Amino acid sequence: MLPATLIKKKRNGGQLHREEIEAFFTGYLKGQVTDYQMSAFLMAVFFQGLSEEETLALTQIMWQSGKTLEFRRDRFSFFVDKHSTGGGGDKTSLILAPIVASLGYGVPMISGRALGHTGGTLDKLESIPGFRTRLSLEEFKAQVENLGCALIGQTEELAPLDRRLYALRDVTATVESIPLICASILSKKLAEGADGLVFDVKWGSGAFMKEYDQAKQLAQGLVGIAKGAGKRVRALLTDMNQPLGTFAGNSLEIKECVEILQGSRQYTDTRKLSLHLAAHMIQLAEPQLDFEECLRRCEASLENGKAMEMFEKVCLAQGGRLEALPLPKQSLPLLAPHSGQIVAMDTEAIGWIGVSLGMGRKTLEDKIQPTAGFEFHKKVGDLVEKGEPIVTLWGEDSFELEQYLKALQQTISVEEASSVTTYQLITQIID
Amino acid sequence: MLPATLIKKKRNGGQLHREEIEAFFTGYLKGQVTDYQMSAFLMAVFFQGLSEEETLALTQIMWQSGKTLEFRRDRFSFFVDKHSTGGGGDKTSLILAPIVASLGYGVPMISGRALGHTGGTLDKLESIPGFRTRLSLEEFKAQVENLGCALIGQTEELAPLDRRLYALRDVTATVESIPLICASILSKKLAEGADGLVFDVKWGSGAFMKEYDQAKQLAQGLVGIAKGAGKRVRALLTDMNQPLGTFAGNSLEIKECVEILQGSRQYTDTRKLSLHLAAHMIQLAEPQLDFEECLRRCEASLENGKAMEMFEKVCLAQGGRLEALPLPKQSLPLLAPHSGQIVAMDTEAIGWIGVSLGMGRKTLEDKIQPTAGFEFHKKVGDLVEKGEPIVTLWGEDSFELEQYLKALQQTISVEEASSVTTYQLITQIID
Repeated sequence: MLPATLIKKKRNGGQLHREEIEAFFTGYLKGQVTDYQMSAFLMAVFFQGLSEEETLALTQIMWQSGKTLEFRRDRFSFFVDKHSTGGGGDKTSLILAPIVASLGYGVPMISGRALGHTGGTLDKLESIPGFRTRLSLEEFKAQVENLGCALIGQTEELAPLDRRLYALRDVTATVESIPLICASILSKKLAEGADGLVFDVKWGSGAFMKEYDQAKQLAQGLVGIAKGAGKRVRALLTDMNQPLGTFAGNSLEIKECVEILQGSRQYTDTRKLSLHLAAHMIQLAEPQLDFEECLRRCEASLENGKAMEMFEKVCLAQGGRLEALPLPKQSLPLLAPHSGQIVAMDTEAIGWIGVSLGMGRKTLEDKIQPTAGFEFHKKVGDLVEKGEPIVTLWGEDSFELEQYLKALQQTISVEEASSVTTYQLITQIID
Repeated sequence: MLPATLIKKKRNGGQLHREEIEAFFTGYLKGQVTDYQMSAFLMAVFFQGLSEEETLALTQIMWQSGKTLEFRRDRFSFFVDKHSTGGGGDKTSLILAPIVASLGYGVPMISGRALGHTGGTLDKLESIPGFRTRLSLEEFKAQVENLGCALIGQTEELAPLDRRLYALRDVTATVESIPLICASILSKKLAEGADGLVFDVKWGSGAFMKEYDQAKQLAQGLVGIAKGAGKRVRALLTDMNQPLGTFAGNSLEIKECVEILQGSRQYTDTRKLSLHLAAHMIQLAEPQLDFEECLRRCEASLENGKAMEMFEKVCLAQGGRLEALPLPKQSLPLLAPHSGQIVAMDTEAIGWIGVSLGMGRKTLEDKIQPTAGFEFHKKVGDLVEKGEPIVTLWGEDSFELEQYLKALQQTISVEEASSVTTYQLITQIID
């Protein structure tokens, strides 16, 4: 295998055979293909794409580059996970994982940290004092097998090739390639050992994919490749043109989730999306059930307290003291400059303000401020009166909060009331 | 400067400012931009191209990455060189350099070795026993300043960044990019210190650029960038759909050149192209002269023996004993299988047979067989009788020659006599 020959084939729009993909990527693992050949190949992929067959072959090499989990099936016979491409205020994992586990399915959930302008499940969990997100793979496996759910962070043992490729893509401007994103997401999820996968592919101003068509391509890719790898799979395209839910921020999002788990119905969009994702997970496990029945079971789990009970068990197992959750002491409202209707929220810009407040990180060294966050009183389509609060900034230092008020104001467009298109949270389901 | 930001800008089709090109490539020289970032950038350039401004900025950094020559101008006031993109039987340098030098202009000529299916001036010169092609830059400069001409090989001291980038491009499938080829050719030529440059850009089956349009793009790029760098410049597009001249092979080509320099008129196309290229070089030095006058002066130099005298002086200065030129002992003719007309010659395929015979190298370690070669008795458009020799294979081992006879036969199409389009050696002149 001459690496340059394979790079040239892809560069010229050719399709590589499974054996060629394997030779190139296992050659990379063995040091026979260099980083500079890999980055040239990845750039060629950016322009020429990868077919479904090529992406599947790549995904398999990535997923098999490290350990792969296989669960004992005495207590739970179906293991199912959800992956979200991320967006402002996206906190559904913390609700749907306990729901699904409480209904008798294993949920092995490996989550990420805050990335760019979006938060990360891991940072949210770590705002719960004592919560350990770094279980060993053995601890993780045992907890999923025995309790039904564990929530941990990425580990170097699963899909190490993905980690290496991602680091290379990050510094060579080859991140934004749908087949490479597909392979990266799936390699980790496939190594996790779940039987079913639900993808929440977000699009809009607060998502990584701004365009609906791009997100749809990614969703189709994820579904196609996961099926090719023998999994049950479904993808939801969901609208991220405004933050999800009422709160964004680490401990504030935990608070919102706990209230939903305790039966609150006030956070309508978070509750709805969590329930729908959970119901799709159930339907993957029980294809004979209709969707409405799956949804009813999930709602029941919220109402009868089983989901909350499961969440408490997970916290207890992982050392988290939910009762000690810190909440912010200072607040500053953003008031409507004039009466009108909220017509748009620049959700990415809001996310970057959040990063500055300490919700996320600009560099790996930055420390998270767990109580910093936003409370959204109004969402797109809502009417406001002049002087009414639209958003409240929360944190520990009111002087600091004031610094961001002006920037925040510019992210929210209040215009004369008109007919804003109704916001549809779940845009499409792909399976 | 964040390298990934500049790679992304190019990847997305943006145009980099001069400062950005400088930051990226000087960053590479300083080790701040890695090989894997450079190869991703080069692949992005393969797809998105470089503007003339970008190519000029890159060329300047490459050419200034090493030493640059500046000639003493007491004896010669104008220095001019020719560069050919290479093709089968292309031997014009050995004729035009002594012609131009004999007319009172400095010719600093740095040539390459055999590459792929084409021969190299350096290997041809080295078939002359004793000929030293590795002068130091100081020796080279002194010989050009005093004698008017020196013929040497690439040196690591000129444009070292070009050498580094070429090595990287070679193993990352990023060679075939017209702006990168442009910058590579020009960086070496500009470092050479000539005032004028004539480019022989070849197209057709025996050239690297098979397509006329590609070759034209390259010619236009070379002319544009060289002008931007303040040089007098001209490019000729020449047809390489058949080998140039009667002989191909190292010592055999020297023989053809020497005979032309001694006044022979039998090698019409080699003589014509050499004279035309030489005349364009003269016209760059003397823009007030018309082309016919330049051509007349060059022809006179062949006829009055001045060019041959100059070639002998160059050989003497560089240790070459022309009288000891080895010639092949064995020959084997390829006979016409039937009567008809030569309608096509697959010049690249002929070149690869030549490489197998020892005219060139498949790997850097291969040794050249200086006397191996071809003698073309017939060219495209010529009529042949059945059994008449079309090509003679020359070498040292008639058993070896026989092995290639069949392959050679397949490269030359003899068909029923028809009206073959007249072969036009010089297709276009760009200035």
